Amino acid sequence: MSVRVDLNISLDGFMTTTDQTPESPFGEDWPRLVGAYVATRTFRRRVLHDESGEGTTGVDDAYAQAYFAEVGAEIMGAGMFGLHDHPDDPDWRGWWGDEPPFRVPVFVLTHTPRPALEMAGGTTFHFLSAGPTEVLERALEAAGGKDVRIGGGAAVVHDFLRAGLVDHLHVAIAPILLGRGARLWDGLRGLESGYAVTAETAPSGTIHLTFQR
Amino acid sequence: MSVRVDLNISLDGFMTTTDQTPESPFGEDWPRLVGAYVATRTFRRRVLHDESGEGTTGVDDAYAQAYFAEVGAEIMGAGMFGLHDHPDDPDWRGWWGDEPPFRVPVFVLTHTPRPALEMAGGTTFHFLSAGPTEVLERALEAAGGKDVRIGGGAAVVHDFLRAGLVDHLHVAIAPILLGRGARLWDGLRGLESGYAVTAETAPSGTIHLTFQR
Repeated sequence: MSVRVDLNISLDGFMTTTDQTPESPFGEDWPRLVGAYVATRTFRRRVLHDESGEGTTGVDDAYAQAYFAEVGAEIMGAGMFGLHDHPDDPDWRGWWGDEPPFRVPVFVLTHTPRPALEMAGGTTFHFLSAGPTEVLERALEAAGGKDVRIGGGAAVVHDFLRAGLVDHLHVAIAPILLGRGARLWDGLRGLESGYAVTAETAPSGTIHLTFQR
Repeated sequence: MSVRVDLNISLDGFMTTTDQTPESPFGEDWPRLVGAYVATRTFRRRVLHDESGEGTTGVDDAYAQAYFAEVGAEIMGAGMFGLHDHPDDPDWRGWWGDEPPFRVPVFVLTHTPRPALEMAGGTTFHFLSAGPTEVLERALEAAGGKDVRIGGGAAVVHDFLRAGLVDHLHVAIAPILLGRGARLWDGLRGLESGYAVTAETAPSGTIHLTFQR
């Protein structure tokens, strides 16, 4: 039962992209940042509901499988649920589809809580205004002995890392330089102490970096 | 005959350390940043003149060997020769010892050129005030068909990378977070286009990243 973070970043340490336009809502950089992950068989099955068995296997897919295994609850920021774009819409149900990939209780941090939202496939979104320690307590309880994942976004992950609450950090580094965005590593000098740090390279060029308490 | 850069950086992309004190002239961070490289048999033999055969072999040593192989001339900034600390000392001979590890012509960029300095072991330091393209021309000529290395420091490497003059960039990433220093990747968005980017992890935890034109 541990607290884990899984992230995609660029070589220069950016975990968000900033080239979104109305025509390209995710931007041109996003597919390059997460491309190797999105291409895996596990992502296609679990997130895109593609049961054809297509998608990459191997190193990237092993990490994708680990991403979903053993997670009993998830914590995310309001932005990751889409609340920043839909602040006043009480009917907004997130942008994760009718059957979100989480399939566990998800705790969404927001200053304006709303009623819980039960989705198909086992995902229930709970909305609460709380600090990292408090929401983690709730999530650990809901996880029933399994892991809790801090899903994002950037600011939320930072809060948990800086508070020393993360046991397992997996970072998939794409071999590209974004040059702009939110920096994962800022303000984390010396984070490696207290962790075993390992790295492994996938044929896709992705470097999988793991900090394990 | 290509132009190459070899660097040690931290996970968060810093290529210099900033915790130097009079008691600890290299700082505490420096040994952690370059430790895996300094521990190799090739570094010990080539830089420390240790002929005992001690030192690590394997992945890190293979990169250390490649570091010295096929280089016919080197370019470095004034700071790397120690001129910033000894600006007015005409007898300053650098801090690379009587028999510097380069063993090739070294071109030192400085606004106040001085006579060339011939050292034991094949190293001759030439001092010149010139831009990247001009000094590279001189160095390629001196290299006699072998590679030219841009040795450092940070600003000089940046100048050459931004000018698109580097054919081969090898970055040894130490699994530590420095949180401060000079950032290698700043202002290099999109550098990966035009290069094949590969990565390999050593048992020391070092990630060896290579950009090859």
